[in-house]
Amino acid sequence: MKLYDYSAAPNPRKVRIFLAEKGLDYDLVQVDMAKGEHKSPEFLKKNPSGKVPVLELDDGRFLSESIAICRYLEAVYPEPNLFGKDAYELGHIEMRNRVMETELWPQIGVSWVNGPIVAKMGIYKQIPEAKEVSDVNVNNYYERLDKEFAHSEYVAGVRFTIADITLITAIDFARTSVGLKPDESLTNLWRWHALVSSRDSVDEITAPKK
Amino acid sequence: MKLYDYSAAPNPRKVRIFLAEKGLDYDLVQVDMAKGEHKSPEFLKKNPSGKVPVLELDDGRFLSESIAICRYLEAVYPEPNLFGKDAYELGHIEMRNRVMETELWPQIGVSWVNGPIVAKMGIYKQIPEAKEVSDVNVNNYYERLDKEFAHSEYVAGVRFTIADITLITAIDFARTSVGLKPDESLTNLWRWHALVSSRDSVDEITAPKK
Repeated sequence: MKLYDYSAAPNPRKVRIFLAEKGLDYDLVQVDMAKGEHKSPEFLKKNPSGKVPVLELDDGRFLSESIAICRYLEAVYPEPNLFGKDAYELGHIEMRNRVMETELWPQIGVSWVNGPIVAKMGIYKQIPEAKEVSDVNVNNYYERLDKEFAHSEYVAGVRFTIADITLITAIDFARTSVGLKPDESLTNLWRWHALVSSRDSVDEITAPKK
Repeated sequence: MKLYDYSAAPNPRKVRIFLAEKGLDYDLVQVDMAKGEHKSPEFLKKNPSGKVPVLELDDGRFLSESIAICRYLEAVYPEPNLFGKDAYELGHIEMRNRVMETELWPQIGVSWVNGPIVAKMGIYKQIPEAKEVSDVNVNNYYERLDKEFAHSEYVAGVRFTIADITLITAIDFARTSVGLKPDESLTNLWRWHALVSSRDSVDEITAPKK
């Protein structure tokens, strides 16, 4: 297996954590997004959407979208289970993962796209007013998460799952690249962050620098 | 089973189509979003995010997030298969579904939130500049879909899957509620639309009124 990666990007990190949890070996290929390599004709043959991560299987087929790659890996390598063992758990973990994806990620995305790093690239029309709204939304969401973690050890309950992988990559990207660090008063959220960050799969090998 | 629904909303429609494909009976409970019933204390106990759809199981447990509900139903009622039969197909269908969700849906969402219907509600700060960008993005995406449907019968290949359910609900919502109808010149996209709309599960029972 070969993973097309860009180490600073949050979505490939999800797959790196997932592969580490499964204890799998693979080749890592850096796609330099800063140089636009993800939009090259050669790369677009691997993923027409021009994004990383992309997984190349040993038979030459490709899969993109981080969670889709993880879902494939879960089917081939079922242990340790990260998506759910029975019908209800499959639904519940997907629900919790999607709540993180749909309620937090897009707000971080708006702040990122309208923030200073992307502004310098000059590829997107900047809407500072949108960033003002999304910054507030992200911080409000951190407060909601803090309340939830008062009653729940992990995002989907009592064990580490794909939903924790989605949230740790979102928060680590937001705090290191978008200037949206959760307030120190949110002690339940930081308790969860320390718990998840202590896993070998989530440590400095896959974590953003800082 | 009981489905908490709002007939005009696109996400509950996904689950109604899915239930119809599986041939399942269930009770339908309307949650009047126009009256704010989805934010009532009683409903927030069913789904703390205050959204429909919500599925209530016969044992009293709840699941929300349309695709998570569908994933649960697929595990309990495997036929007809709508998420994939082997590891690669599970990954491929999830990939195609997520491409529709992440590349098209958020753009429709920005146009909806900053459009005339939501503006009248007075609950979100309006950013007309954001809608100008998202309207263009949606129409560009329709053109990309038209090119893809020149070579692919369905969203994920040769058969109807969850990815088609995601796309038909997105496009029907965009064209009937957001003023974003695909141009008539996009004949491949309209060929797909007619094919999918001819299914009993997608017909006037679940389709938005025009």
